[in-house]
Amino acid sequence: MDADGLYRNILAKASYLCVGLDSDMDKIPVHLKNEQNPVFEFNRAIVEATHKYCVAYKINTAFYEALGSKGWETLEKTTAHIREHHPDIFLIADAKRGDIGNTAKKYAQTFFSTLNFDAVTIAPYMGEDSVQPFLEFSDKWMIILALTSNKGAADFQYFHSGQDNLYLYEKVITEAAKWGSADNTMFVAGATRPGELKHIRNIIPDHFLLVPGVGAQGGSLKEVSEQGMNHQCGLLINASRSIIFADPSEQFAATAAAQAREMQQEMKQYLTGQTA
Amino acid sequence: MDADGLYRNILAKASYLCVGLDSDMDKIPVHLKNEQNPVFEFNRAIVEATHKYCVAYKINTAFYEALGSKGWETLEKTTAHIREHHPDIFLIADAKRGDIGNTAKKYAQTFFSTLNFDAVTIAPYMGEDSVQPFLEFSDKWMIILALTSNKGAADFQYFHSGQDNLYLYEKVITEAAKWGSADNTMFVAGATRPGELKHIRNIIPDHFLLVPGVGAQGGSLKEVSEQGMNHQCGLLINASRSIIFADPSEQFAATAAAQAREMQQEMKQYLTGQTA
Repeated sequence: MDADGLYRNILAKASYLCVGLDSDMDKIPVHLKNEQNPVFEFNRAIVEATHKYCVAYKINTAFYEALGSKGWETLEKTTAHIREHHPDIFLIADAKRGDIGNTAKKYAQTFFSTLNFDAVTIAPYMGEDSVQPFLEFSDKWMIILALTSNKGAADFQYFHSGQDNLYLYEKVITEAAKWGSADNTMFVAGATRPGELKHIRNIIPDHFLLVPGVGAQGGSLKEVSEQGMNHQCGLLINASRSIIFADPSEQFAATAAAQAREMQQEMKQYLTGQTA
Repeated sequence: MDADGLYRNILAKASYLCVGLDSDMDKIPVHLKNEQNPVFEFNRAIVEATHKYCVAYKINTAFYEALGSKGWETLEKTTAHIREHHPDIFLIADAKRGDIGNTAKKYAQTFFSTLNFDAVTIAPYMGEDSVQPFLEFSDKWMIILALTSNKGAADFQYFHSGQDNLYLYEKVITEAAKWGSADNTMFVAGATRPGELKHIRNIIPDHFLLVPGVGAQGGSLKEVSEQGMNHQCGLLINASRSIIFADPSEQFAATAAAQAREMQQEMKQYLTGQTA
């Protein structure tokens, strides 16, 4: 899917919501634990309940790897289910990979060929040759960590060079934007720092931003939308725990749908005036 | 295993070699491809042939993930085999993970509990709270990327702050050394930059360094040993392709053993004078 295709889906659904499938076995409703594959049944129910209100799902690999090879089977079943039943969905592997070229090539193969994701999140620390293999796949995306939503973001992302007059996160955005294009590169920009979102939007007017941190981490949908939107939306706003774990009862899927719908309805307002 | 335990093993084997199981399905000897699990049979043969000459194995997760859940099964079988037959081995997951606390906790659980690795490599970009969960396991290690062996290392790791008078990689080492101790924290320092190894050793005299880049990437074992060793060795030098893919014939394991033995014999000289 290219940027135009993603934008068309955003307009069609009046939503730029990404639902994060951080499907922690310890947090899914108790009644599912008798199923043969509880996490897959949870994901299927969440997807069937929420897909009308979102354009993307983000699968956080950590929660699957914690269950070993059975977790990877669940990851494969979940991506296959979404691909088969909801081909319009933009599918993100939140894996934060990054390694030397030789190894990065294998990661690209894993997420783009073996698992058929549209995009994978990438840690930029190892530089250009660590991301290049991800850019060799057509119609696939890398999503580079720029400014993250956690407290520790301050430790290194605000490391400042007087010579360049840049923070590290600004350097990452400036450099990485040259490696690919707005059709294959997005950046992670945390919702917990809305002031910086406006600034990032100025540096890269055309790129999509994947914004975590709305919901459980406290970021505001309104602020993020005001600060980060561009002429083609340019935002995917992720919510995970606040949607998928809103309700531990047997009604969890209906409650998740209601939560997703509430965000979608608010997003619809902010999209007013945008057309293809 | 703590630092003293690792050092005792180094002295006992007169080796600080780490063999990297970058067991790429496309590169293993053709005759193994008829086996039910070719990569596991390859790993088992390599381990049985080389374990006398090394103190650690490093499993690069990318090469396993590329095969999907079956690859993770192979990863599990390989770690279980090493644990059962060679309990003295220091077992490293080269996974380069790093995420917000909530997610990092799951990664720590994956590699330390589910898979029983001794150590996991970590990308530092997201800061202290992204590594803290790895420090909560006793007798386990995090290995932080500091200065990597690839060309792209120059893109951000040499980003310089005039105010701190530090390169980013120096900032990462200085800060991360405070988060844990020399008994649970190592740093990755590439063999392709021996001048900087000496400098890193001065910043952190007591920490172990995991050094990739000797062998296929061109780093010199002699130079790295001279520049990086401390009073308790303080080095794990990794070689992957130059050992495990030295020979594509049916004699691959014997050739790998010879390659590993050659490095061990050289290491033995550099360890002269070191005692427990």
